[in-house]
Amino acid sequence: MSLADRHAQALELTAAAGAPALLCADPANVHWLTGLACEIETGPSPFAPGPLALLAPGEPVRLIVSEDERPATLPDGVEALAYEGFTTGPLDGPRHARRLVGEALDGRRVIAGDSAAARGFALDGDAPREVRDVTGGLLDARAVKDALALAELRTALAAADAGQAALRAAARDADGAAEIELFAAVRGAIEASAGTRVPLLADLVSGPRTAGIGGAPGDRVVRDGELILCDLAPRVGGSWGDSCATVVVGDGPPPAAAQRAHARVHDALRRAIEAVRPGVAVRELDRVARDGLDYPHHSGHGIGSSYHERPRLVPSATGSLREGMVIALEPASYADAFGVRLEHVVRVTADGCEVLSRHRLELS
Amino acid sequence: MSLADRHAQALELTAAAGAPALLCADPANVHWLTGLACEIETGPSPFAPGPLALLAPGEPVRLIVSEDERPATLPDGVEALAYEGFTTGPLDGPRHARRLVGEALDGRRVIAGDSAAARGFALDGDAPREVRDVTGGLLDARAVKDALALAELRTALAAADAGQAALRAAARDADGAAEIELFAAVRGAIEASAGTRVPLLADLVSGPRTAGIGGAPGDRVVRDGELILCDLAPRVGGSWGDSCATVVVGDGPPPAAAQRAHARVHDALRRAIEAVRPGVAVRELDRVARDGLDYPHHSGHGIGSSYHERPRLVPSATGSLREGMVIALEPASYADAFGVRLEHVVRVTADGCEVLSRHRLELS
Repeated sequence: MSLADRHAQALELTAAAGAPALLCADPANVHWLTGLACEIETGPSPFAPGPLALLAPGEPVRLIVSEDERPATLPDGVEALAYEGFTTGPLDGPRHARRLVGEALDGRRVIAGDSAAARGFALDGDAPREVRDVTGGLLDARAVKDALALAELRTALAAADAGQAALRAAARDADGAAEIELFAAVRGAIEASAGTRVPLLADLVSGPRTAGIGGAPGDRVVRDGELILCDLAPRVGGSWGDSCATVVVGDGPPPAAAQRAHARVHDALRRAIEAVRPGVAVRELDRVARDGLDYPHHSGHGIGSSYHERPRLVPSATGSLREGMVIALEPASYADAFGVRLEHVVRVTADGCEVLSRHRLELS
Repeated sequence: MSLADRHAQALELTAAAGAPALLCADPANVHWLTGLACEIETGPSPFAPGPLALLAPGEPVRLIVSEDERPATLPDGVEALAYEGFTTGPLDGPRHARRLVGEALDGRRVIAGDSAAARGFALDGDAPREVRDVTGGLLDARAVKDALALAELRTALAAADAGQAALRAAARDADGAAEIELFAAVRGAIEASAGTRVPLLADLVSGPRTAGIGGAPGDRVVRDGELILCDLAPRVGGSWGDSCATVVVGDGPPPAAAQRAHARVHDALRRAIEAVRPGVAVRELDRVARDGLDYPHHSGHGIGSSYHERPRLVPSATGSLREGMVIALEPASYADAFGVRLEHVVRVTADGCEVLSRHRLELS
């Protein structure tokens, strides 16, 4: 695995900012530059700050990290600078990290960085005095996926597919079950598919809650004939997947109004998929998906090291699709009593797109 | 629910720092000051920075928060200042949050803050120029639990108990199952107990992996007669619980060496619990737990709005126990082939302690 092309792109941004080095602290950028999937599930750690990535021309990429989160292997061109992890000694990860950054910078005081790095290092006496924010450039570079990013996306999408299959299987016999019980089956299937714990952004709502776009599963009990809206974005190996389906509880026919809404949303998703190709304006793709529907959110978004990347499909979007972008498309319809949302993730190819997610979209 | 005593303590720290206001960004401090359990499971959001708490004498406590994370109700004395959440418009949560902080501060440029707030606001032109770090004082204030914190801890510990019971039940018949499958049963029980999703810090390791202190569940298949070490710290309603047990797989007798190690650790935990009372030096409590054992980590730690709070039970600790502190005690023994760790959470009472966690500790 080589991340050399990514490193070259990041150093171009650094040079354009007139800076001799680049420091990144956003977990998505650290993953993109070093391959490390940072721990995120339990919030800020009282033991250590998150890992950092430091780049400078002609130097190896440095991953500055606690011993506890240091990977067993690193990609070519990446070296770890590790500080003491969780021991019985004094715990001062932020100080250790700043010291290592200062040593690696060796007097360079004006650097480029992402906004997370700018926040983390501005106040320290030994650290950079000025961090020039290149967050936007990094987001643009990340939007076009290389072979490694695509492989990681496929794995994460397969985990999402496993979750959708589990939801569909559980829904058939779910009358009387709580949303949170269905979620246990879904998450269990995702983590069994990945063979490890998986951070998971998810909507799982039932009945009238589906009209509210999304939300976390709760103790609401589902009943035959109700809808379940399930949107699953698992992070596997540092890359996020995404998928959404809306299914009916039980084995009876779905309510007619739900079938009509589902058909409209399904048609919108099909139109959007057919419209994807390099050069299409992002706002035009949003218009195609949104035509005839009225949902108060984006029509889709890029996805990769973050669950929501560029491009962002909204009416005010600028820019055009580029080959290699990977985009989630998620038109929807929300009525007073229920909502339907369907989502596929596609890769922009030379003359159209490839649908990467493989879950079923039928109501039942 | 009133948080008036906490607010008074925080304002005392603010005055001692010579500052007219206090800004907190650490999710643990935001919870302690406003009751809000911040979203943490999916890492930094691309849509909004985390919630902030702002205090000043004679003013209501302000919770500065995206509309998406604004609670339906707030405790007495707390008001929300909310900015636009997830829409189709421009997304710039950090700018909105800084603007609201600037307006609420109304020209006060030197303030007190926790270290997370100091990081987040130092670079902005309209925001405070100097943030005086009172993180340590806030940690000391949080260490002694009021009635609300204790009630929340009991709920979180009950969720951990439910997870331990599920692990124990699953272990009996686990031969051939993967760790990650057992984890699904454990997490499912915790979330069913809470009726909602629950952030979860957890070790779940089996066989020789138990010798390595901890780690995430993986695809390792467990076998009859092996040990499983399971440490569960779920966050429910903003408060963390914690518990650890070590159990044998199957219904046969545990290996003799494991029984001996378990007896030594169990005895250490009993000794530590008996030693807890106000005025006991923290390092003495660590010594009592550690006596005759050799584990490379703390003997325990405070717990509440963060999963690891003061006091920290290590040989170099300073300070003494105070009535109302809540402490996890977790002595352990790690051999070449296996490890055993047991943990209870106790509340320091006027003349001893009350054991708050209720899970079983037996090997089988």
